[in-house]
Amino acid sequence: MDFVATLQAAWRERNSLLCIGLDPDPYRFPASLAGRPEAIFAFCRAIVDATADLVCAFKPQIAYFAAWRAEDQLEALIGHIHTHHPGIPVILDAKRGDIGSTASQYASEAFARYRADAVTVNPYMGYDSIEPYLAWHGKGVILLCRTSNAGGADLQNLDVGGEKLYERVARIAATKWNSSGNCALVVGATFPAEIARVRALVGDMPLLVPGIGAQGGDIAATVAAGQTAGGFGLAINSSRAILYAGSGEDFANAARRAALLTREAINACRAPRT
Amino acid sequence: MDFVATLQAAWRERNSLLCIGLDPDPYRFPASLAGRPEAIFAFCRAIVDATADLVCAFKPQIAYFAAWRAEDQLEALIGHIHTHHPGIPVILDAKRGDIGSTASQYASEAFARYRADAVTVNPYMGYDSIEPYLAWHGKGVILLCRTSNAGGADLQNLDVGGEKLYERVARIAATKWNSSGNCALVVGATFPAEIARVRALVGDMPLLVPGIGAQGGDIAATVAAGQTAGGFGLAINSSRAILYAGSGEDFANAARRAALLTREAINACRAPRT
Repeated sequence: MDFVATLQAAWRERNSLLCIGLDPDPYRFPASLAGRPEAIFAFCRAIVDATADLVCAFKPQIAYFAAWRAEDQLEALIGHIHTHHPGIPVILDAKRGDIGSTASQYASEAFARYRADAVTVNPYMGYDSIEPYLAWHGKGVILLCRTSNAGGADLQNLDVGGEKLYERVARIAATKWNSSGNCALVVGATFPAEIARVRALVGDMPLLVPGIGAQGGDIAATVAAGQTAGGFGLAINSSRAILYAGSGEDFANAARRAALLTREAINACRAPRT
Repeated sequence: MDFVATLQAAWRERNSLLCIGLDPDPYRFPASLAGRPEAIFAFCRAIVDATADLVCAFKPQIAYFAAWRAEDQLEALIGHIHTHHPGIPVILDAKRGDIGSTASQYASEAFARYRADAVTVNPYMGYDSIEPYLAWHGKGVILLCRTSNAGGADLQNLDVGGEKLYERVARIAATKWNSSGNCALVVGATFPAEIARVRALVGDMPLLVPGIGAQGGDIAATVAAGQTAGGFGLAINSSRAILYAGSGEDFANAARRAALLTREAINACRAPRT
């Protein structure tokens, strides 16, 4: 099934726009797992199993696995999600970007090795650096557009002939690069006005929105700016605020409570469902 | 030792501006190793040992290891270079880019896990996405500026208020971001006029120049456009044209011959040494 179709189905079936980011940090694990990189899988599996009915997607961040030599645990985690929670798309947050021959290798990494449904990609190197991911039938390609960090403005907000660079990326993505129909964009919750600008440029294209929770983005403003007709169109990501909602052995229950509250906070702002 | 100081010493001691890119593709290995991902280390080690006296740097491309679950072989390869060929800087070509908390993890991956001397980084997310790499004392941060692929022009050549985006990146890198003195820039050999523009903006900052060999960039034009006083300032990368110079069991000797010819072709174009 196509990534975008899977995401759309997950939005409806789970009544949720919440994406949980899996950024495992062994130093923040509860006492029984703390400081044990080999417990990354166990920690993430507990979070996944406690929250799978509440989310439209999971988004493992590969850097948190790579820093700990835990690629095998990332493979196992994604396999676990596919096997035990079918219908939830897995977004590999890797922000890859390279020339075509190398991008083909990165696409193999994301889609063959890790069996991700979508991967985040950096657009700085242009179309031919994105094409190898698009060549994987049905797989999602989520391009960085306006990122949630303060430094995102350094280049992304530069004026490029009457529009900003991130607007140009959005416009090109919508009009030229989305040949597969499985493109999406990253737009940070920390800049709701810019979510609105991107939404105006890209029609119904899904937006992956990091920056609520630990990064401080505003849920109501994000939903108002980014939702499509019927209250869809967004995968709103929270990572640390859910993963580390509790610091004790009941961390998975604490994560579930945080996920429930976040989903409800999002849903309270959505337009009536159609 | 600092990355830039190590690179400068390697330029002089080995009389070479040649960087060999390690992009192992098991389908292109000689018959005895062909199709065997577990032979990636053996293939790369043979190339390294046959060419180490001819290069100023080695540049493993992590995608080619990650696609084959060969992270352990990449660790072993970099360890081999450090142990058996001290003084040659290792550039991990990873083109990472993410928000600060995640970039810290990627910096650990590159510098703690892989023990690279420098890593390539994508500037699209701005200064705070680069800072965590700069925080590693002595390590090199090599920012994408003008990449060698055709699509590089899609964003990098956009006009941003009287200069192109890649020129802006070069200018910011030289004047604001290079607090450590260990920054460098990627500028493709396929666009010599743009190498000259970058050189004019960044003083003596080292440039990593991919795009000769398989990608067709011109050595004479690259050296003329990019060298600093005395014929330094460049790490000119060739990957496939050297790795796969021979297809038989004498591939390492063939790689050495190709590396010798490339180094000499570069040296023939350099200004008299000072």
